[in-house]
Amino acid sequence: MSVSYRRPVEPDKAYRLLNHGPTVLVSAAHEGKRNIMAAAWSMPLDFKPGKVAVVLDKSTWTRILVEASGHFALQVPTVAQAQMVEAVGSSSGKTLNEQEGLDKFAAYGLTLFLGQATEAPLIEGCAAWLECRLYPEPHIQETYDLFLGEILFAQADERVFSNGRWHFEGHDEMRTIHHVAGGHFITAGAAIDATAMPRVR
Amino acid sequence: MSVSYRRPVEPDKAYRLLNHGPTVLVSAAHEGKRNIMAAAWSMPLDFKPGKVAVVLDKSTWTRILVEASGHFALQVPTVAQAQMVEAVGSSSGKTLNEQEGLDKFAAYGLTLFLGQATEAPLIEGCAAWLECRLYPEPHIQETYDLFLGEILFAQADERVFSNGRWHFEGHDEMRTIHHVAGGHFITAGAAIDATAMPRVR
Repeated sequence: MSVSYRRPVEPDKAYRLLNHGPTVLVSAAHEGKRNIMAAAWSMPLDFKPGKVAVVLDKSTWTRILVEASGHFALQVPTVAQAQMVEAVGSSSGKTLNEQEGLDKFAAYGLTLFLGQATEAPLIEGCAAWLECRLYPEPHIQETYDLFLGEILFAQADERVFSNGRWHFEGHDEMRTIHHVAGGHFITAGAAIDATAMPRVR
Repeated sequence: MSVSYRRPVEPDKAYRLLNHGPTVLVSAAHEGKRNIMAAAWSMPLDFKPGKVAVVLDKSTWTRILVEASGHFALQVPTVAQAQMVEAVGSSSGKTLNEQEGLDKFAAYGLTLFLGQATEAPLIEGCAAWLECRLYPEPHIQETYDLFLGEILFAQADERVFSNGRWHFEGHDEMRTIHHVAGGHFITAGAAIDATAMPRVR
């Protein structure tokens, strides 16, 4: 559906997909297994090469797949996807995969596509997708559940992101969502432009 | 001015001040020197104790003060403060402090108050303030400019944050701001509540 609106994002502007602090989906795949989870805790880490940081709890199956494959994808979901985000964020892929033989993608009827740089499954309808390579940092992974990576390839839906800027006007259903707690989100609102205030002395 | 609206935030809910990804101000003080900068790259890192991560470039004077003092404060600025955020984000405290003898607080006429747990200067009019203790992690500080800390004490303006939730309705000037690039921000918008979508199989 949204395939035709998907456009590559210039590598040195990919950080801007996360700069305003949206909640993301994290997906990974390894040897035929795959999973996806929601993560409110992610941020850019550098401009060029674009780097990201994301917190992945030890209880998550996605984390195991990230560590095994050395790759992951961050995806920026929208208002229209909030119920899906809650669903993949509150269910356990480990249980689905290992005990029931299902995965979240099938369980929730998600439409996937393949990326350019990793095997991590990508979900149609998101506002942006960032495929990343894990920087192995065992100490902070173990101590803080903190995972760092380099952005290998980024895409965005050109209806809401182009030329390095978000422009949600006229696309309220595609606004990014920013988790507070317990299914409660703040959506991306109006844009403002600010110039530096003058010095008073 | 906003003093009377400042209320402590329960320690296990302090992460919610950053959970929706606002741009923050980072301040620090050491041996009579002090500085403040803007940072788009910060996020929560844990619930209890509340922890945070923030990226501080090697060129910043604030970083030197954070490393010297072992403490820092994150502050959540508002729409009304966007020009101030641009100002402290685009000027160099190092120059002001060392070469001109001024600091950004004086240069921009900022009204300060003292926190409860650190010497980091706090700015009136922000929506929230988090005083933190640095977790020394030299490898990631040097390699990724990444700084981690524990939240020691958090406060918020009760007009827009209470009982663990943001509520900006009726206070548009106090909405949080989320940097995209070059003085361009997306403001916190409408709140939504989502329940998990049902499984299709």
